[in-house]
Amino acid sequence: MSARAPAADDGPFRFEVRAVDGAARSGVFATPHGDVPTPVFMPVGTQATVKSVQSRDLLELDVRIVLANTYHLYLRPGVEIVEAAGGLHEFMNWRRPILTDSGGFQVFSLAARRKIEPGGVRFQSHIDGSEHYFTPESVMEAQERLGADVIMAFDECAPYPAEKSYVREAMERTHLWAERCRRAHTRRDQALFGIVQGGVWPDLREESARRLTELGFPGYGIGGLSVGEDKDEMLSALRAATSALPTDKPRYLMGVGAPEDLLNAIAEGVDMFDCVLPTRNARNGTLLTAAGRLNIRNAEHRADLRPVEPGCGCPVCAVYSKAYLHHLFRADELLGYTLATIHNIWFLVQLVVGARTAVEEGRFERYRADFLAGYAPPNAEARRRNRERRDRRVAARNG
Amino acid sequence: MSARAPAADDGPFRFEVRAVDGAARSGVFATPHGDVPTPVFMPVGTQATVKSVQSRDLLELDVRIVLANTYHLYLRPGVEIVEAAGGLHEFMNWRRPILTDSGGFQVFSLAARRKIEPGGVRFQSHIDGSEHYFTPESVMEAQERLGADVIMAFDECAPYPAEKSYVREAMERTHLWAERCRRAHTRRDQALFGIVQGGVWPDLREESARRLTELGFPGYGIGGLSVGEDKDEMLSALRAATSALPTDKPRYLMGVGAPEDLLNAIAEGVDMFDCVLPTRNARNGTLLTAAGRLNIRNAEHRADLRPVEPGCGCPVCAVYSKAYLHHLFRADELLGYTLATIHNIWFLVQLVVGARTAVEEGRFERYRADFLAGYAPPNAEARRRNRERRDRRVAARNG
Repeated sequence: MSARAPAADDGPFRFEVRAVDGAARSGVFATPHGDVPTPVFMPVGTQATVKSVQSRDLLELDVRIVLANTYHLYLRPGVEIVEAAGGLHEFMNWRRPILTDSGGFQVFSLAARRKIEPGGVRFQSHIDGSEHYFTPESVMEAQERLGADVIMAFDECAPYPAEKSYVREAMERTHLWAERCRRAHTRRDQALFGIVQGGVWPDLREESARRLTELGFPGYGIGGLSVGEDKDEMLSALRAATSALPTDKPRYLMGVGAPEDLLNAIAEGVDMFDCVLPTRNARNGTLLTAAGRLNIRNAEHRADLRPVEPGCGCPVCAVYSKAYLHHLFRADELLGYTLATIHNIWFLVQLVVGARTAVEEGRFERYRADFLAGYAPPNAEARRRNRERRDRRVAARNG
Repeated sequence: MSARAPAADDGPFRFEVRAVDGAARSGVFATPHGDVPTPVFMPVGTQATVKSVQSRDLLELDVRIVLANTYHLYLRPGVEIVEAAGGLHEFMNWRRPILTDSGGFQVFSLAARRKIEPGGVRFQSHIDGSEHYFTPESVMEAQERLGADVIMAFDECAPYPAEKSYVREAMERTHLWAERCRRAHTRRDQALFGIVQGGVWPDLREESARRLTELGFPGYGIGGLSVGEDKDEMLSALRAATSALPTDKPRYLMGVGAPEDLLNAIAEGVDMFDCVLPTRNARNGTLLTAAGRLNIRNAEHRADLRPVEPGCGCPVCAVYSKAYLHHLFRADELLGYTLATIHNIWFLVQLVVGARTAVEEGRFERYRADFLAGYAPPNAEARRRNRERRDRRVAARNG
């Protein structure tokens, strides 16, 4: 346990908004493992490793906080191993802040044959089919033993699309579970965030945000967005949530990381983001640039001796050509994934750092407009195909 | 082209033996990209990348020289791409010396349907079945365009086992080709090494070494060993070769890298080594330690919070536990391969650096005996299984 500030409600955690520009904010979130300037993009290290990169790569990219996942780590290697190692920071050699997701999303998206009961959820492991039972209390215990700085309440992420009546039911269950998590949580060197649910319905989102604010948390996740709904639906649901959340606590939009979504959510007052996009895209050979995404496997890059993004400050663009990355991907060399991941994480971290500076300098809207004018997001058709691919993958795992 | 020393036979290359201890030597091999202290272990970067690690990992491990492969790079990405990038050093971001193997070994072990003709070898690419023709002259041209510091003559590596009459024929062809390579080679900022062949027959090995010495090269490879023969056969063939090679030029035992073989070959006066062992073993989860090999996937390591090798100075053992590496391998995380590769390269580099110091201090035999007393090599049965697995893999590729 780290040293605590005496008698403060949020323990050693402090969130200070230092500048606002419209609804966008720039702040600092203080944790036992250091300060996190916000807004911030958090790379995902599901299984206690940000896929294909070393901790020191992340330090060099000025990553301030990373995610890990309770569902995955509970199943493998098991919380007892991580706890015995001295917690996640020691286990994965990452001394800056860590946030663990509760595993709610994974239980509902990844596990096989789940059954919701009044007390919690029974499910089968997607790895070996073994049976498990998660309750708000057991998930709190698991996250306390994993030892992240920020831990998340156990929630139910309703599927999309779903009937509004079901989404309400899942939301209300999430509120009950949030309360149980709050009572079960004991470690004051960990901040427990509640999670706003409510699907795409602004009235549910507002209700959820109000209810959780009444319970009182040192920070709030906004879950269940970017799961297949239109961008407009996402934005109005998000706006309903943020407008009902307290202004003096951090807001964390879960699982969102497309460049355009980051800037649009910052405009709504979101402070924290995580997404597998930079790491997953990297493994497909997809690289993020200010003009949009490029696939380095394409033949056009075969003899292109320029960096992925001229002027990019990342350690990859500093020394490697597109031709070299193209070669690594064509030759199935693991270094390709590593280098692409480094570039993509840098891109998103810098995009958000740039937004932060722009907020401080009162020119966020200009920053967003300039970026969006140059950036071509994948079109709706490509997004639909990606979504279908993902759904098939999940179905295959669960089958 | 780099600056040249005026009027020296070996151009900018100098090899100086600074200490001897029995037949073992400690020296320095000067190249246009820096000095290489010998004996030296050279990690293999077949496709212009040492698998799964970054250049700076290699610098941190004090790797002094790496290999790349002409056969592979000729087929993919093509020598014209590497040449346009400014050569291999630029292309793969490695500013220390590089050695390219000629591709002789790969043409005879990997390519499909090869046909030896008086002028060279016709073969089909193992990647796409396309037809190619390698001659000593075309291989010299390819290596000059790739731009390594040390390049190798095009040789025929006879299979093991093979009739002595065929091994002699392949050896004599190798001598003719070595002479043609010597005539075709023009870049004086590259050192061309001849390659001694002759299978397991000491008389052939001695004849080959003498013949190549008459031709005169700035260094000599010893090829076609560690291809399945007994350790004793290998050692007597090696001894016959080294005893007939000039003492003032570096000797490079190709493809050898098992710890016990490195020390036994250093005892015979070998100066340079390369082997895929540390990288290939790493991908199987096999880690090298002073006591022998361990497989990190085994259940016994699941909760073991000690480093792979207590006291090891590598960057992995400094911060990661066996339990973490075990988790990465069980969870199929790419970082596992990277960390295992870093540890294994460090292990072999340090083993050879330690041998060099021991030679300088006149205690090499003690160093070797101490290491071998503690180290349990895989037994003959395990070696046989590994060899069969490899043969099946090659057969599958060629089928």
